[in-house]
Amino acid sequence: MSSGWINTETTATMSRERANPPFDVRAMSIAHHGSEKDLKLKEKFMLEISRDPAYYAVDIHDLTKDQIRQRTFAKIQSLVHNVTNEPLEVFQKRMEVIGLFDPGFWTRFGVHYGLFVGAIRSAATSNQFSYWLEKGLIACKGMFGCFCMTELAHGSNVAGLLTTATLDEGTDEWVIHTPDLSATKWWIGGAAETATHGAVFAQMIVKGKRYGVKTFIVPLRDPKTFQLLPGINIGDIGMKMGRNGIDNGYVQFTNVRVPRAYMLMKHTQVTREGEVREPPLQQLTYGALLQGRTAMVADAANSAKKALTIGVRYAAVRRQFKSSPDAELETQLLDYPIHQRRLMPLLAQSVAFGYTALQMNKLFEETSSALEALEPGDPNLQATIELLKETHSTSAGLKAFCTWATLESIEKTRQACGGHGYSSYVGLAPMGQDFAVHCTWEGDNTILALQSGRALIAAYSDAKEGKKLASGNAYLNNLEKTLNDKCTGEAQLDTLDGIDQGWAAVAAHAVKKAYEDFEALTKAGRSRDQAFEECSQSRFVAASVHTSGYIFRQFRAAVEQVKEGKDGVRKHLEILCKFYGLWQMEEKAAFFLRSGWLSPELLDKVQAKVTELCAETRKFAIPLVDSFALHDHTINSPFGRYDGAVYTSYWRAVRRNNPQGKHSYWESTIKPFLHREDAEFEDVDEAIGIDEEIEEIKQDREEAEAEAKENKEQE
Amino acid sequence: MSSGWINTETTATMSRERANPPFDVRAMSIAHHGSEKDLKLKEKFMLEISRDPAYYAVDIHDLTKDQIRQRTFAKIQSLVHNVTNEPLEVFQKRMEVIGLFDPGFWTRFGVHYGLFVGAIRSAATSNQFSYWLEKGLIACKGMFGCFCMTELAHGSNVAGLLTTATLDEGTDEWVIHTPDLSATKWWIGGAAETATHGAVFAQMIVKGKRYGVKTFIVPLRDPKTFQLLPGINIGDIGMKMGRNGIDNGYVQFTNVRVPRAYMLMKHTQVTREGEVREPPLQQLTYGALLQGRTAMVADAANSAKKALTIGVRYAAVRRQFKSSPDAELETQLLDYPIHQRRLMPLLAQSVAFGYTALQMNKLFEETSSALEALEPGDPNLQATIELLKETHSTSAGLKAFCTWATLESIEKTRQACGGHGYSSYVGLAPMGQDFAVHCTWEGDNTILALQSGRALIAAYSDAKEGKKLASGNAYLNNLEKTLNDKCTGEAQLDTLDGIDQGWAAVAAHAVKKAYEDFEALTKAGRSRDQAFEECSQSRFVAASVHTSGYIFRQFRAAVEQVKEGKDGVRKHLEILCKFYGLWQMEEKAAFFLRSGWLSPELLDKVQAKVTELCAETRKFAIPLVDSFALHDHTINSPFGRYDGAVYTSYWRAVRRNNPQGKHSYWESTIKPFLHREDAEFEDVDEAIGIDEEIEEIKQDREEAEAEAKENKEQE
Repeated sequence: MSSGWINTETTATMSRERANPPFDVRAMSIAHHGSEKDLKLKEKFMLEISRDPAYYAVDIHDLTKDQIRQRTFAKIQSLVHNVTNEPLEVFQKRMEVIGLFDPGFWTRFGVHYGLFVGAIRSAATSNQFSYWLEKGLIACKGMFGCFCMTELAHGSNVAGLLTTATLDEGTDEWVIHTPDLSATKWWIGGAAETATHGAVFAQMIVKGKRYGVKTFIVPLRDPKTFQLLPGINIGDIGMKMGRNGIDNGYVQFTNVRVPRAYMLMKHTQVTREGEVREPPLQQLTYGALLQGRTAMVADAANSAKKALTIGVRYAAVRRQFKSSPDAELETQLLDYPIHQRRLMPLLAQSVAFGYTALQMNKLFEETSSALEALEPGDPNLQATIELLKETHSTSAGLKAFCTWATLESIEKTRQACGGHGYSSYVGLAPMGQDFAVHCTWEGDNTILALQSGRALIAAYSDAKEGKKLASGNAYLNNLEKTLNDKCTGEAQLDTLDGIDQGWAAVAAHAVKKAYEDFEALTKAGRSRDQAFEECSQSRFVAASVHTSGYIFRQFRAAVEQVKEGKDGVRKHLEILCKFYGLWQMEEKAAFFLRSGWLSPELLDKVQAKVTELCAETRKFAIPLVDSFALHDHTINSPFGRYDGAVYTSYWRAVRRNNPQGKHSYWESTIKPFLHREDAEFEDVDEAIGIDEEIEEIKQDREEAEAEAKENKEQE
Repeated sequence: MSSGWINTETTATMSRERANPPFDVRAMSIAHHGSEKDLKLKEKFMLEISRDPAYYAVDIHDLTKDQIRQRTFAKIQSLVHNVTNEPLEVFQKRMEVIGLFDPGFWTRFGVHYGLFVGAIRSAATSNQFSYWLEKGLIACKGMFGCFCMTELAHGSNVAGLLTTATLDEGTDEWVIHTPDLSATKWWIGGAAETATHGAVFAQMIVKGKRYGVKTFIVPLRDPKTFQLLPGINIGDIGMKMGRNGIDNGYVQFTNVRVPRAYMLMKHTQVTREGEVREPPLQQLTYGALLQGRTAMVADAANSAKKALTIGVRYAAVRRQFKSSPDAELETQLLDYPIHQRRLMPLLAQSVAFGYTALQMNKLFEETSSALEALEPGDPNLQATIELLKETHSTSAGLKAFCTWATLESIEKTRQACGGHGYSSYVGLAPMGQDFAVHCTWEGDNTILALQSGRALIAAYSDAKEGKKLASGNAYLNNLEKTLNDKCTGEAQLDTLDGIDQGWAAVAAHAVKKAYEDFEALTKAGRSRDQAFEECSQSRFVAASVHTSGYIFRQFRAAVEQVKEGKDGVRKHLEILCKFYGLWQMEEKAAFFLRSGWLSPELLDKVQAKVTELCAETRKFAIPLVDSFALHDHTINSPFGRYDGAVYTSYWRAVRRNNPQGKHSYWESTIKPFLHREDAEFEDVDEAIGIDEEIEEIKQDREEAEAEAKENKEQE
């Protein structure tokens, strides 16, 4: 066998896998992306970054933290050109692709353009916005911003932030101050090495009265020299689990003065005389956070697809153990039922998340258009607030459960690559390390899930009173019928509508339990808040079951919009949708059995169907990951290449590190150890002769004592 | 408020948490460790390494890969002194502590002392062992070994390894050869920068006949100069998810010659004439792998305890949101029911794993004593093989499920620390990155779980035939009665015996399903192997349910050996045991409902009890983690300190990185960008005047054409 045989073997296997796809791969791809236009846009972006020297990715796993930081910043220049020249929605799609390829850079760019610019957009008056525009806000010239909200001791409880902004009416300035260590701004992306300005969230104090947390633009560094301005202390948060390309810093303000007009005054205004004018409702500052959550659901879908592309392509060409002694080749991992069980459900889930993200985007666009058009005193305020509330609670549950599920998918896919999954070059470990932060930032997942559960309890209460619920909670209408539903038999499990009914019934039961637990607690004398805390577990379960059903429903709605046809797209999306719905039923079988919707016998049927669907999906697994249309450069893994040449590219990736085999510590540390001469063994007792001496000392003392006694007697 | 207030507050809170423990913490600690002697030994080891300069850990997260590698090797010297001077069981306890503190170093040391020495111990003849002893094996002088088994294309399928060892009878040598890229030895710990020798697993070929995989000691480098020997190519596997202190390498042999006597001949012998003598049974080489698995269950327990110590101590002092506007302080995370739900079950599980590990150790010690005493032709061979088989299948399931559960515990605990959990200095992210390899090395977890499931099918078959099963499978005796058991009511869920019965019944059902699925497949005409593959999912489920029940039973057995008394130890271990058993019931509720052992109403009772047990355990959570007796140095996290001074120590840890705020790329990369002058916008059309020119060219051509036409007409 020549040294090239393994490459020929794996690439030939991969070619066979995609030889006869049961659907038109291009048409499937277009469906996943929502439109051919969006697909082509994504392909254009991936091609551009694959050729751009700033996005050279071959050596990224061997860089030091400082090198990663520098490389990451170097990418900003090309992006700034795009952000100032492309329409916003086109640029956002570019960012989605970049985020999939380099989450650290996406974050670095996003702290200025997403968070800092977003804070100003959402809370600055028209004049204030123009002012910062002229200062170089959008062009990113002469200024780079960061978002100073989180503090060392306050993350989730934004209202409890301790940084203060006190009006000095004499000088018409705010004095920004960090009162003690616990109020130190922490995790501030871009602060450590990049930012000249910060959007600082601080407790506003005027004439001794506290007005809650407002936003203040504070210059941090002299843009010419990058020196810290007086009273500003900034340091580096240091090494993180992932995303080391973003330079998170801590910031302390010691009596820092900024002009009064640096407070963003769209909602709350403060006059020269110190008069404070508050807006009617305080909720309108959630806009910036919502954008982050929506992008996260999309990132979860994309990241899951990227991970599964790597894992499925590897499993197609990796072979281990022969099925019989005379088999010519060992068996492909993808042909093992257990390996199908490990990966195929996650694959279907990534597709489900993708369609859910498209839906979320539509919902977010509606909400942010409404908010952008808002003027103080607008009559549409109420309708917009209702839409904001539903978007907020929908996005909360989706953000939590989609990011948790995707983190789990990445790690499970990593393990499915066996020992090789532990190599950074294979790419799945760094993906997980970068992705994990989604579970705690922009709203802690557990808290978001509980918010979703709380909203479900309110919805259930409304449903009980006969109010008609719309949209995501519509399954709670007709409560009595829904709660008494049972699965009519195996045939019902074969249709999307049948599976949908199961989710409606079981989610209704889970929400009912949360509602009843809550009611029981309030009846027992607890306050509403205390009752919510004590039924947290039921709330969490309700949100979890509800969200799985919600995702299934989004996937189903998207599938049913696809035209039936010879291209096989509609047929296979239906298979995947059924797969997702049934697999989640199996995952949450306890609730399906508890509600009685499934009997134990029907649960066994569900398990058998899921196993069959794993085997069926395996047959088109490669065309399916091909339809995710990810460029090899974006995937950046020797195992995820289109051509399946896993071993030679893994070999090349590994060989690239320290090719001359330089050893930096053989002489200093290993050689002296291996060639050491141990100290001679010395019998110390013998060498000193201590025991004989001890005896002599004893004898001398006894003789001396005897002599003294004799002398005494003689006297 | 002075800057020190937060420290005073958190340390005072921590003191209150441990003020009135409901049990004697020292006595509890002794119970966890098996004996006071073992506890003191562990404390001695932790104290020693906390003071040893080689174990300075304060800056480890900021080191480069080369620095970590060098620091890691530097620790070996002190350990070698211990390994040559301490009794083996004492030294193994020292390694357990070291592995908890520095998994990369534990691995670096273990590749020589565990794997290389272990391979020689288990497969060398008496003379061969003496030979390598004299060469410096145990003293680690002049030689350092590595374990060359895994290849690029073969991990799990050891029998399929492609490296060859062909006997050259003329020169009385083996020719070791890597036939192609796919056979390259891969993941070889110690090979890249440390090893002088390797225990190489290769296909033995004598007179053209293949005899399977045997072990050959192959010199890799000249111990004096560290130069690679002829025909040896070694390179560095490079960056990994974790454990970058161990230098994994790849190794290629190109016609490398070693003396015939370098093949380890305890089991298979090859004479000068090329006569091959095989032992009666081939299974006896599993000994080395078993030790690894047993140590992994212990490491899972210890790692879970370390992670939970960090998470629980942090949750005790971290406060967020007030329970009412006039509350003086915000609420401790540990007082939120949902936070109790996140951490308390994992805490109980870590205790359960600890007692299970003690049991496994006893079982391993029995098995390895038996194997050590084995001489070829020994009449005790059969009994030892049966014990080996049961240990092998028990350890398989435990290794898989305990490592998966612990990896999940570490990540969930990391997330429970909110945003701060993303910092490397907090320690949980690096812990997870180091721990994760347990899920794929020393036997892929999924494959091990399936092995366990396969053994359960065989045990069920035996039980059906009326054979009496012992030990871990004894619950399958009296099948009919067990399968028909139902939970008699809420009261049964309050006793360990009652919970035990539930696990017996439900595990029996899960095993029954796997057995029946298997039987159905063989009856349908599948071969045994194919049938096993197709019922993989049922096998996996059987192993999962069985293992949870097994762990509960080990925990219960250990608890019931503890004397009742005023020290409260027995009482609280019973609470934790009940907690683990009921929580696992809730986690696996689908199976408890499916089997009918639990009704939906009783499942609700289980959920309520688990929530209560979370709240009850919270009350002694701090004394409980105190009883894990981990030194602050071993924990190495600002959040895991005994005194609870989380913020100031986190601050100090972060401040230590780049304290002078050196910026390595302001001048080169950021400044030119922020101060760039964009190219002037140029209207190119206007500057060139191209459109007028185009028009002129057109006119010139038309005139020329007209002229030419005119001339032609004139002719």
